Amino acid sequence: MFDQLHEECGVFGIFSKTNTDVAMSTYLALYALQHRGQESCGIAVNDDGVFSSHKDIGLVPEVFDADTLRKLGTGNIAVGHVRYSTTGMKSRTNAQPLVVRHVKGPLALAHNGNLTNARELREKVELGGGIFHTTNDTEAIAYTITQKRLQTGSIESAVEQAMYDLKGAYSLVIMSPRKLIAARDPVGFRPLCMGETKNGEIIFASESCALDSLGAAFIRDIKPGEIVVVSDEGVRSITTHCGSKGKFCVFEFVYFARPDSVIEGASVHRARQRAGAFLALEHPVQADVVIGVPDSGLDAALGYSHQSGIPYGVGFIKNRYVGRTFIQPTQGERENAVRIKLNAIKSTVEGKRVVLIDDSIVRGTTSARIVRLLQESGAKEVHMRISSPPFTNPCYFGTDIDSRENLIACKMPVEEIAKAIGADTLGYLSVQNVHQIAENAGCEFCDGCFTGCYPAETPKAVAKDKFEHPIGRSK
Amino acid sequence: MFDQLHEECGVFGIFSKTNTDVAMSTYLALYALQHRGQESCGIAVNDDGVFSSHKDIGLVPEVFDADTLRKLGTGNIAVGHVRYSTTGMKSRTNAQPLVVRHVKGPLALAHNGNLTNARELREKVELGGGIFHTTNDTEAIAYTITQKRLQTGSIESAVEQAMYDLKGAYSLVIMSPRKLIAARDPVGFRPLCMGETKNGEIIFASESCALDSLGAAFIRDIKPGEIVVVSDEGVRSITTHCGSKGKFCVFEFVYFARPDSVIEGASVHRARQRAGAFLALEHPVQADVVIGVPDSGLDAALGYSHQSGIPYGVGFIKNRYVGRTFIQPTQGERENAVRIKLNAIKSTVEGKRVVLIDDSIVRGTTSARIVRLLQESGAKEVHMRISSPPFTNPCYFGTDIDSRENLIACKMPVEEIAKAIGADTLGYLSVQNVHQIAENAGCEFCDGCFTGCYPAETPKAVAKDKFEHPIGRSK
Amino acid sequence: MFDQLHEECGVFGIFSKTNTDVAMSTYLALYALQHRGQESCGIAVNDDGVFSSHKDIGLVPEVFDADTLRKLGTGNIAVGHVRYSTTGMKSRTNAQPLVVRHVKGPLALAHNGNLTNARELREKVELGGGIFHTTNDTEAIAYTITQKRLQTGSIESAVEQAMYDLKGAYSLVIMSPRKLIAARDPVGFRPLCMGETKNGEIIFASESCALDSLGAAFIRDIKPGEIVVVSDEGVRSITTHCGSKGKFCVFEFVYFARPDSVIEGASVHRARQRAGAFLALEHPVQADVVIGVPDSGLDAALGYSHQSGIPYGVGFIKNRYVGRTFIQPTQGERENAVRIKLNAIKSTVEGKRVVLIDDSIVRGTTSARIVRLLQESGAKEVHMRISSPPFTNPCYFGTDIDSRENLIACKMPVEEIAKAIGADTLGYLSVQNVHQIAENAGCEFCDGCFTGCYPAETPKAVAKDKFEHPIGRSK
Amino acid sequence: MFDQLHEECGVFGIFSKTNTDVAMSTYLALYALQHRGQESCGIAVNDDGVFSSHKDIGLVPEVFDADTLRKLGTGNIAVGHVRYSTTGMKSRTNAQPLVVRHVKGPLALAHNGNLTNARELREKVELGGGIFHTTNDTEAIAYTITQKRLQTGSIESAVEQAMYDLKGAYSLVIMSPRKLIAARDPVGFRPLCMGETKNGEIIFASESCALDSLGAAFIRDIKPGEIVVVSDEGVRSITTHCGSKGKFCVFEFVYFARPDSVIEGASVHRARQRAGAFLALEHPVQADVVIGVPDSGLDAALGYSHQSGIPYGVGFIKNRYVGRTFIQPTQGERENAVRIKLNAIKSTVEGKRVVLIDDSIVRGTTSARIVRLLQESGAKEVHMRISSPPFTNPCYFGTDIDSRENLIACKMPVEEIAKAIGADTLGYLSVQNVHQIAENAGCEFCDGCFTGCYPAETPKAVAKDKFEHPIGRSK
Repeated sequence: MFDQLHEECGVFGIFSKTNTDVAMSTYLALYALQHRGQESCGIAVNDDGVFSSHKDIGLVPEVFDADTLRKLGTGNIAVGHVRYSTTGMKSRTNAQPLVVRHVKGPLALAHNGNLTNARELREKVELGGGIFHTTNDTEAIAYTITQKRLQTGSIESAVEQAMYDLKGAYSLVIMSPRKLIAARDPVGFRPLCMGETKNGEIIFASESCALDSLGAAFIRDIKPGEIVVVSDEGVRSITTHCGSKGKFCVFEFVYFARPDSVIEGASVHRARQRAGAFLALEHPVQADVVIGVPDSGLDAALGYSHQSGIPYGVGFIKNRYVGRTFIQPTQGERENAVRIKLNAIKSTVEGKRVVLIDDSIVRGTTSARIVRLLQESGAKEVHMRISSPPFTNPCYFGTDIDSRENLIACKMPVEEIAKAIGADTLGYLSVQNVHQIAENAGCEFCDGCFTGCYPAETPKAVAKDKFEHPIGRSK
Repeated sequence: MFDQLHEECGVFGIFSKTNTDVAMSTYLALYALQHRGQESCGIAVNDDGVFSSHKDIGLVPEVFDADTLRKLGTGNIAVGHVRYSTTGMKSRTNAQPLVVRHVKGPLALAHNGNLTNARELREKVELGGGIFHTTNDTEAIAYTITQKRLQTGSIESAVEQAMYDLKGAYSLVIMSPRKLIAARDPVGFRPLCMGETKNGEIIFASESCALDSLGAAFIRDIKPGEIVVVSDEGVRSITTHCGSKGKFCVFEFVYFARPDSVIEGASVHRARQRAGAFLALEHPVQADVVIGVPDSGLDAALGYSHQSGIPYGVGFIKNRYVGRTFIQPTQGERENAVRIKLNAIKSTVEGKRVVLIDDSIVRGTTSARIVRLLQESGAKEVHMRISSPPFTNPCYFGTDIDSRENLIACKMPVEEIAKAIGADTLGYLSVQNVHQIAENAGCEFCDGCFTGCYPAETPKAVAKDKFEHPIGRSK
Repeated sequence: MFDQLHEECGVFGIFSKTNTDVAMSTYLALYALQHRGQESCGIAVNDDGVFSSHKDIGLVPEVFDADTLRKLGTGNIAVGHVRYSTTGMKSRTNAQPLVVRHVKGPLALAHNGNLTNARELREKVELGGGIFHTTNDTEAIAYTITQKRLQTGSIESAVEQAMYDLKGAYSLVIMSPRKLIAARDPVGFRPLCMGETKNGEIIFASESCALDSLGAAFIRDIKPGEIVVVSDEGVRSITTHCGSKGKFCVFEFVYFARPDSVIEGASVHRARQRAGAFLALEHPVQADVVIGVPDSGLDAALGYSHQSGIPYGVGFIKNRYVGRTFIQPTQGERENAVRIKLNAIKSTVEGKRVVLIDDSIVRGTTSARIVRLLQESGAKEVHMRISSPPFTNPCYFGTDIDSRENLIACKMPVEEIAKAIGADTLGYLSVQNVHQIAENAGCEFCDGCFTGCYPAETPKAVAKDKFEHPIGRSK
Repeated sequence: MFDQLHEECGVFGIFSKTNTDVAMSTYLALYALQHRGQESCGIAVNDDGVFSSHKDIGLVPEVFDADTLRKLGTGNIAVGHVRYSTTGMKSRTNAQPLVVRHVKGPLALAHNGNLTNARELREKVELGGGIFHTTNDTEAIAYTITQKRLQTGSIESAVEQAMYDLKGAYSLVIMSPRKLIAARDPVGFRPLCMGETKNGEIIFASESCALDSLGAAFIRDIKPGEIVVVSDEGVRSITTHCGSKGKFCVFEFVYFARPDSVIEGASVHRARQRAGAFLALEHPVQADVVIGVPDSGLDAALGYSHQSGIPYGVGFIKNRYVGRTFIQPTQGERENAVRIKLNAIKSTVEGKRVVLIDDSIVRGTTSARIVRLLQESGAKEVHMRISSPPFTNPCYFGTDIDSRENLIACKMPVEEIAKAIGADTLGYLSVQNVHQIAENAGCEFCDGCFTGCYPAETPKAVAKDKFEHPIGRSK
């Protein structure tokens, strides 16, 4: 029913000075990062140079049980990953962390982002006789690093050299036999932060909510272009590729990140409330109640309400039990079954002029259904407000914002979108204001999906149907 | 982590004049009723007198897949059930609907409630040579009805006669070879309503949200003591046991029912908001933000905010992926892992005087943890407000409100509870006002768990450790 | 591919004076009895009067894993069952042991056989207001016993009284809170023996191979009509219903029992060899090699070879990996896939005159396929010999020998059967000689399926489509 | 209980001129080859250049169900593999076929055998910057071929060139976008044959029994050193590496291959019978019965019986239901449970002088148990005869015949082995005669495990603990 946008991945790494249950810590952290990828997940554990790993298609509780965790054993380093595929088919082979063996021993990589030159890197390796097992770009990163390793004296130097070749978005956590390394592309598209547990373990995670889940203290964000190396000798930063303040993906604040995370010094929850407040200033309306589409529209709805003075209400109940194993009714039954996943609360909206807040509109079909749901429940007027600007361009840097032909805002002006979804009025947050939502953030923002102006080169070929000969896939 | 109260069961039945996919309709409805029982579920389908059934331990999506539904086949009547066990062990044997065969053919029963004379009924049957397969009281109901059936001319007369013997709380849906029957105890403890789909199918369900999920129209609530019989001859009401307006469980409005349901003419969501509003009047406080414990405290928090004028905030993120398969960390790990299931949003509470709303306090341990979470996140003051009166008595009528030794309100006065949970102040809704929350409701309310005054006889023996020789259990 | 006959069930019980891992012993014994029923299985454990049980559809290794066994816990008595359904639908509900609760506490029953008056017993109970959960006749046995229990002072007296009412074939193992009871019908259709482990535990089992699997010593067979009671007071025999030597099912020796079992003093393996030897005397032929259909025809083939002097050969390889989850190819593929389950060894049969031994012919389709397989592999002649007489009558006493319309021997004389299956000649063992195969057996034999003369009353109604309104079934 | 030897793998490939259900054909064939590897299995399907694959740990019926097969889809080429790991850890990652992508598109490889220079090949690739995902030697083969592919004009030329570098034993089936290729090492250690279905599909399989299972005609064995290429242009043979008659693993005839297979023109079943006959000539004894250890000793026992005139008997029942999910009883229980997997038939051996035939003795522990089983069942004398010479050397060419310290024949002379296992006498087949068992075979034989004389170079390092830093393993 819901054509939602998907974040691509979440990454995690932990380094302990002693042999301990790093698999359990990673397991707990992946729960906190699950919203960043629900397709597959995995953990790799390093026990004194011997790597054990387990990964599969499914949510964390589906892939890991007590037995699986026990088999991973203890160790002093571990990396974890949750994935939604933007590159490469959905398959077990493409699940991460990617564990490979090269001339200096095993290596495990967890990657969030999207390379824009993955095709070129692959071709170069293949022309040298290399073989690929997966269709995701992480294997191209692995090859680039291991080939640099032949010419350098350490894994961190290899990463440093490799970053000259890697183009696009990447927040990486890399485990070698003795080290844990975090690296972020020079633009800093995707988040990556560092923390420390009460036992002195160093942690890298996509979002600070994973630190909270382990009771760990937040240390700082990894800087755009920075490489941080943790070993028994301590923590070391390599800043060769650092320079700019970075252009962080603003849609992380709008939708992807978890509200309790703090990124670049700004609270995600507060950013969403501010988005709602700006929206109220930009697109005021006479109404009786402000409601949000659960869960992503709720924070902005509250901000709109506070700013406008229109009371905040709970307009919908979302059924928490409907998941991937839900059996889709046939067409005839579906008409009757529209309110399984989302039902309106009549007492909130009946006879009311309703302001309805959502974070974005992609194709418009979902918005149309939700507006109709309110109208059937007795809403007199429905004024839709979107807490981000219209999508008019694809994203090449790690989200699945689609090609232009699927984006409703590429096809018609705002007034027609309003008509198409059945809303009385429709208002989007302006590009100017979306840059203001993350209060006091220590970075600038990428707004490529709204403006078409990207802070890095886009791929030469069309990015969305990358590898035409998929392997290892389950059709 | 959360010592929550549990509703006992949800029931559903559908009668179609034609052979159709009644199993799919029941499947969809059980999704909407899942909040009433997450332990086991089941569906029984009647295809021209031949009963097929499937039931097991687990949530609806765990117990039913496409293959299971297909095997149930089509039919013209079906009943469904979701269960949390209050009587009888948790086991597959105790899952419902209970399907039995007696002298007049097969019978399927789905029961929500709790008999107070189940032990006496069982003993009587056993002394007559009867045998029991389950430890739940539904089998005692089945026996009572089938034995009455020997002396009466129809299944509905048997139900009518049986109701003279059945004591306690029961909302029943019964399927015979040709009829679908709904019955509600004369006190009307548990909800039961009737609806009609666009295709003219008659539906019985514990809550109206199940009607919405099928796009069915709400017709009316079944009256306390009423029997409604649906057959090819139409719908017929038997009112022999009707009389009073009933004493409906007020805690259904406070916590058990789904907010989008309408019961006895009153919106559940609105009742919770009103509970919050009354709470603000009874226990005002100077504060900066009102937050609710998700999900059950959110509605009342909004009501408190609207009434008091203190801004409503989002104080917590609840992790939706943590379920029954979550591997509990060991004690050492647990201390670090407190924020896996519930994390505070620092930007909402830091430096603030917080009003924290929850629906109830049972043992107090969970409340203590949540208060501490807020304090660790920087809350200056935490003023806890509970949208129902203190639990001081067990419930014998279908919920698992426990024996008095586990209820914190039986052990200490409110001031001490506040200290025990670490809150700066604590206020409960008064018994007087909890009766007012369901605006214009067509019934009176049972408040036995708050007052010890029950609208029906309580069991002679202690109810909570009912059958001392469990059978068929998985230890 | 193979239209095999099915034994109905295997039963097991163990009584220990101390609390020990009786579940594990039962688990091991059920492995040894698995050939008697591959449809469902179960174990019930008695821990000082508290019964735990687990049962499901599937083989022993599918139904029981380490976790399931652990949950059953320890105890001092246990009963187990493997089942192939002759009465009642294949379903989890019908799996045994049947665990019920009656006036004197819980009771678990495991039954091998088939009542001929189950319908009458059920009707009587139903007319008294009783309800049935299953469609198998074991529940009728349970009712009969529990109703007698009301009028008698002990469970064994109740069994003794019940046996006046139970008609047909039954080898029962019954567990009460303090006793383990074995009972066998007065005709003694099905096997049941008693043994003792090195630790002094008393064991009842359908076949002696289950004793071997536990390293237990064989004590004796339970006599036809005998009841044996084991309690802390020791072992006691009730012989009220004993009298005749019994009429044991001769087909247990021909096919059902495991070759390493010893029943009524006679070795099953040796009986099959003798059947082959008698067959060589009755139906000699000039040939080059004698081969058996694996696994059931191998022993008789060896006996035919020894008697005739024609060399014994291995004619087939049976694929041990093809089980219930084998995906049947479609018609087109099937023609190519005939040799998946059974392949001929060309070097054994090419250019040879082959004597082919099997234990029986039911519909003839399988035999025809096997004969053709040999001919395609180069056999010059195929002389089929069957180590039992032709099936001309149904069995009402615990096997699934079918109604007459499906038995090829009811439709045509032997010569035509030979033609129908493509064999050059065909010979069956005579009824006279099948009575001689179990050397020195201490019993007489039922040969009803060959002669139509049954040693007990047959059911009034047709037995094979017993309960027309199945309940709890998965269609 | 049984320390059996393990064959390493089975391979299969099919080429059709049309798009058809090649996955189903491969599925059926893998059932026939399952005895060659029970640890993991997989299928890769080629649909016009697009590869789909599925592989996992488990038996064919565990890894493939109707849904999995359906997802593989149709195609015109497929390869399949069953595996028992000799190189590389047991893990999903190491399952085959190995599907990789290189400069000329995807490639799938299925390998039976063992490279003796895998370590050197890996090191060379790693020093060139290559990365490895698995720990099995098949990935080294893939790299060698793809690197040759850069310098040659076709995949078959690349295989031809690669064979100069590959040392050791390999029977390969390789699938490229348009071709199916079979290749066998110049020594021809492992079997590989070619057949044709009725529809004209070309098939490669480890053993001819897989051809039978598809109703396919046997064409011929692949010659040692031969490469056979199948494409739309037809079938082509490359014989660059051909030369000698080869030295086929004689233990394939003794134990590994399926009895109904024909290899190098000789029947495997007949070879085993001949081994038994030679054994009777070399080691005659006065005895009453000859029995074999099921299943591998049965054929030789029959041969011994025919040659010696001592009657053949069935001495054991093997429990077919005991598999990998069997729960091992604890030590105390195990003593009682010795006869679960294998039970003696007392009537065959009691009071008899028994000749016991098995194919080999590895550590001797199993043989000792079996001898004791016979003695406890009343055997007067037990004369053990082994249908192969004593193992005194490890195998480096694709079986798991272990290091010398585990081989009982390396530790003591035959007389002492007899004492150690409790047999009255013990006799092994001579090396001279084991070369004679495969009547009229078109090849010579490798007897390295008996003589230490190997027909190819053995690895420089110890082969059995190959890759010291395993990756992707489940500990």
